[in-house]
Amino acid sequence: MTLCISLSARPSNNGTRFHNFLYEELGLNWIYKAFAPTDLANAIAGVRGLGIRGCAVSMPYKEDVIALVDQMDASASAIDSVNTIVNDSGVLTAYNTDYTAIAQLIERNAIDPASSVLVRGSGGMAKATAAAFRDAGFTRVTIVARNEESGASLAELYGFGWQAEVGESTADVLVNVTPIGMAGGPEADSLSFSEEAVTAANVVFDVVALPAETPLVKAGRAAGKTVISGAEVATIQALEQFVLYTGVTPTPEQVAAAEQFTRAQ
Amino acid sequence: MTLCISLSARPSNNGTRFHNFLYEELGLNWIYKAFAPTDLANAIAGVRGLGIRGCAVSMPYKEDVIALVDQMDASASAIDSVNTIVNDSGVLTAYNTDYTAIAQLIERNAIDPASSVLVRGSGGMAKATAAAFRDAGFTRVTIVARNEESGASLAELYGFGWQAEVGESTADVLVNVTPIGMAGGPEADSLSFSEEAVTAANVVFDVVALPAETPLVKAGRAAGKTVISGAEVATIQALEQFVLYTGVTPTPEQVAAAEQFTRAQ
Repeated sequence: MTLCISLSARPSNNGTRFHNFLYEELGLNWIYKAFAPTDLANAIAGVRGLGIRGCAVSMPYKEDVIALVDQMDASASAIDSVNTIVNDSGVLTAYNTDYTAIAQLIERNAIDPASSVLVRGSGGMAKATAAAFRDAGFTRVTIVARNEESGASLAELYGFGWQAEVGESTADVLVNVTPIGMAGGPEADSLSFSEEAVTAANVVFDVVALPAETPLVKAGRAAGKTVISGAEVATIQALEQFVLYTGVTPTPEQVAAAEQFTRAQ
Repeated sequence: MTLCISLSARPSNNGTRFHNFLYEELGLNWIYKAFAPTDLANAIAGVRGLGIRGCAVSMPYKEDVIALVDQMDASASAIDSVNTIVNDSGVLTAYNTDYTAIAQLIERNAIDPASSVLVRGSGGMAKATAAAFRDAGFTRVTIVARNEESGASLAELYGFGWQAEVGESTADVLVNVTPIGMAGGPEADSLSFSEEAVTAANVVFDVVALPAETPLVKAGRAAGKTVISGAEVATIQALEQFVLYTGVTPTPEQVAAAEQFTRAQ
């Protein structure tokens, strides 16, 4: 039996449900288990020593783990952040499937690289988002973040502009990478961009995954825009992990069933 | 969910079946998984770093692991051999539940410490057996082993005698700790002590666990002797591990069911 795990200060059930559902569905003798490590270096030593095949990495370990792996895939080195480790006979390679998922969604939705883009947020996912747009050839990107230190430095990192407030946006692409609209959060009912900004845009992209239908996603759909949801990001990144670990690609129906099972908790 | 594991170069399903059966029977949200570690030190680091609660240790790690734990229980230090590690919030204590099981069986069967005892064998289990008899106050113990180096040094360690062959035994207690009588082995049908030796003895003790009814056990039962089987040793040592890990003592019926499930593979 092959083991995959996650390392997080506050483990959720999402990965456990998604991966174990697909192991069973595909008849794989694998098991997935979430851990809250007591010591990151010892935990990664355990990944090596116990021959654990795959390891998801969440807050607050995504950067500290870089020093403990053997190789960085381009997806992780692009943003100096790791969310996935694959163990090939003791050689640990680090990936970032959040970056991969966002890059895939930009490509699948055929967003024009000449578009103007507003990315609202300056945390780890905002970094993955900005890097994915840059690597897809976008140059007209502005980071929106009240925190000047993190916002301006993220913008500078990728050669983008920075502004503190959304203002009267006429951008073609709106991307929310803040907790605005997140279920259970203080701004669950808020719209991360104004109705006018949504009207002026072609593409609305919300990285918030819970709920799948955030206020921004709903507003985008109502206005007939191309909409990309955080639920899509979450599913694609988990699927990418699954494929990296097992080498098996489930069917779209199996992925949809796993996603449904994961959300039904 | 709490994880317990085993570390062995060639993992068997026994521990996995026994422990997981009882977890389910007792409604414990625990899981047990067998590992063949690629590196013992990293594996034990993983026990610490991942907060793995319990860890069974088999060949060839029973002695090497001593340097990697924090405390040695008397059962392990008595024979410088570890088969069980308990992780209490990062403090690893090593036990040897084979020793504990043999000591319990000597006591439960009320074997007279004045008895003369032949222990046939000079490996790790023979060491656990000799130590358990010594610690129960037996002094008239002879180690029987063709290999003089290991046999005589084991005897010397506990102040016992050594002889190369069983000869015409008149010992009160016969203990087999060799592979003679083991299912699938080259001497599966052989008797580890002669019929005459069995007739002369009061107690027949076979540490071979598979089959439960070895030729020696059968001969002892046929001759109306007090019989102790290796299956009893195996069950008690696994139960001791279970209690050390979980703090829960299953009922005798639950243990019997777990034993039956473990053997039915």
